[in-house]
Amino acid sequence: MASQEMIALGSQASVIRDLFAYGQQQAAIVGKENVFDFSIGNPSVPAPACVKESIKHLLDTRESVAVHGYTAAAGDSAVRQGLAEYMNRTYDAGVKADNFYMTCGAAASLTITLKAIVETPDDEIVLIAPFFPEYTVFVHNAGAKEVILPPDTEHFQLSLTALEQAITPHTRAVIVNSPNNPAGTVYSADTYTKLAALLNKKSAEIGHPIYLISDEPYREIVYDGAPILYVPKFYANTIICYSYSKSLSLPGERIGYILVPDCVSDAKTVYTAVCGAGRSMGFVCAPHLFQDVILQCLGQLSDINLYDANRKLLYNGLKDMGYDCVYPSGAFYLFVKSPEPDAKAFSDKAKQLNLLIVPADSFGCPGYVRISYCVDPDMIRRSFAAFKQLIQQYQ
Amino acid sequence: MASQEMIALGSQASVIRDLFAYGQQQAAIVGKENVFDFSIGNPSVPAPACVKESIKHLLDTRESVAVHGYTAAAGDSAVRQGLAEYMNRTYDAGVKADNFYMTCGAAASLTITLKAIVETPDDEIVLIAPFFPEYTVFVHNAGAKEVILPPDTEHFQLSLTALEQAITPHTRAVIVNSPNNPAGTVYSADTYTKLAALLNKKSAEIGHPIYLISDEPYREIVYDGAPILYVPKFYANTIICYSYSKSLSLPGERIGYILVPDCVSDAKTVYTAVCGAGRSMGFVCAPHLFQDVILQCLGQLSDINLYDANRKLLYNGLKDMGYDCVYPSGAFYLFVKSPEPDAKAFSDKAKQLNLLIVPADSFGCPGYVRISYCVDPDMIRRSFAAFKQLIQQYQ
Repeated sequence: MASQEMIALGSQASVIRDLFAYGQQQAAIVGKENVFDFSIGNPSVPAPACVKESIKHLLDTRESVAVHGYTAAAGDSAVRQGLAEYMNRTYDAGVKADNFYMTCGAAASLTITLKAIVETPDDEIVLIAPFFPEYTVFVHNAGAKEVILPPDTEHFQLSLTALEQAITPHTRAVIVNSPNNPAGTVYSADTYTKLAALLNKKSAEIGHPIYLISDEPYREIVYDGAPILYVPKFYANTIICYSYSKSLSLPGERIGYILVPDCVSDAKTVYTAVCGAGRSMGFVCAPHLFQDVILQCLGQLSDINLYDANRKLLYNGLKDMGYDCVYPSGAFYLFVKSPEPDAKAFSDKAKQLNLLIVPADSFGCPGYVRISYCVDPDMIRRSFAAFKQLIQQYQ
Repeated sequence: MASQEMIALGSQASVIRDLFAYGQQQAAIVGKENVFDFSIGNPSVPAPACVKESIKHLLDTRESVAVHGYTAAAGDSAVRQGLAEYMNRTYDAGVKADNFYMTCGAAASLTITLKAIVETPDDEIVLIAPFFPEYTVFVHNAGAKEVILPPDTEHFQLSLTALEQAITPHTRAVIVNSPNNPAGTVYSADTYTKLAALLNKKSAEIGHPIYLISDEPYREIVYDGAPILYVPKFYANTIICYSYSKSLSLPGERIGYILVPDCVSDAKTVYTAVCGAGRSMGFVCAPHLFQDVILQCLGQLSDINLYDANRKLLYNGLKDMGYDCVYPSGAFYLFVKSPEPDAKAFSDKAKQLNLLIVPADSFGCPGYVRISYCVDPDMIRRSFAAFKQLIQQYQ
């Protein structure tokens, strides 16, 4: 007496969560220091000091009912105003408070946006492999179909030819995720320029706008001067889904936003539909205390130098051993080619060595594994012997 | 290029929110002290001291990544364990950590539960008027139909005869909300005993269990010794939806839970579907800091004596003027019969006097208004002249 679809979703624990749970069990048996858990994208760098300071300041200077009361469904107006000013200062975005809808994090930003824009069960959402596996779940929740672009395993960049072929009269939106989970790649200004030209051409051809949903939880986590771009400057019909999970190391607090800039066609209608979709799923408002925390911490960032150091340590270490790795320019994942075609089998062999790495089949990219380096650098160092032992099985 | 249904939902601002917004505008014109806003159910009593203390304690004693990191999707295991022990201590509930699924508040508890149990578009959810207006929105989100039981305007209690008639082979669940928003009424043990007998009989007749969804955000907010009951003791197939919005005055923080006790038939399957439904809508996990806050504050309650004093002040005041009021035993709403059949017209006349009271049409109960008394008692006293002037228009 329950929905078969929901039972299926609830019982398919994700590969990532499975590995994580296995790691916890193994730690109890072989000792925590002998398990090398690279499974989860849980920030290892503390939130910037302003988070703790602003929470205490809010608690000490405001009345309880003002701190913890309901905000408007779209979010506190002062928070949205501050956010608009920050985006205008930083990206010359030209946005207003009323373009923002505060959410319970990136996943909520996506489910709400998709539910807002999907009209019929024939609507198609294009996903570009490799992609965050929950995208398919969120597309189904909105009542649409996913169309998956196969990965460009040469550069892990966007193949415009493949995208052009994937677009049909039913295409409603394309989701991009740069910096990318799991590949760690970042789109350049040139990529967005070409993507915009293609989407404008195809929108004209099919007679309705194709939305670009830019999923940006890793926006500021870039290395070696990789660009941080404001995507609507390139393509007008862009809806931004943002989260503070990674930039402020607050994944458990569920705080983010949807930005529907005025340049989106029918922006006001789309924004209204976003409000309706948030309401229908029972989001009510984004967590209030953390709305104010992000206002106090605008422009702050967790210390990504620590991720950068991990990135170099891990990339160089594995490269030297003979692993075939994608050089990451952003996020905190190293994407590695499995030395055998079946990445699941490779991940299982790694597991025997208490090395927990995620096969990327569910990311739409068989034959690869994702290694999260948002971890203690000492664990990376300790893991090298196991990584070496692992690749030697293939040499 | 957006969902018509979501646009409609987003543009129909609720009557409550409309009145609230009007009040803010009027306050700027006639002065805050001359607007009597009884529109919103936003707790006026501060959170108990343990909330602030436990937040500071968590921030001072734990690492940032432990405080703000992801929890398991169902919630932190220590939090759920503490919750189970509290429920067993308080209600002899016989529940375990794994019966709880932590949520972003009562609305999320309801949307997730409904999505978990609804199987086909023919499924019916019975709502008992008067009911919280968003119930219909949540039922539609789950893809089911609402069946509305007309209000028992004599006692605002449950009419078993009407309920028996409303149940069909398509009935999937009945939602009860005691203490009730908006009527302030509380179901007795006797009511639950009779309700259980009816639901057991009808479940046998239609050949499948009818779930009772007990929506309990006001569980502990009762007066004059009205009972606080553990509903699964009466009816086994009960799923509890709870929120700390009212009991700890944390409505903006979005923290609550779903409890699927083992006595529910196929409890494990239903619980799995709950996990799937939460996942599909992108809830990820309930806000982490406040999961730990509620663990630290188990059994605490905002000072409801303040609501009780408001209740007596308002009830007696309006009764003396000649208003026909339902005597509230719980929650913080006074339900008043409109002196003219059209409660909307009555509310409009009140608005002319800067008295903001909510017509209950959208609660499924035309001819009544809801007056929220989670307000400053001085405002209640100042409002009496306007209430008097209002009723004199009908005398």
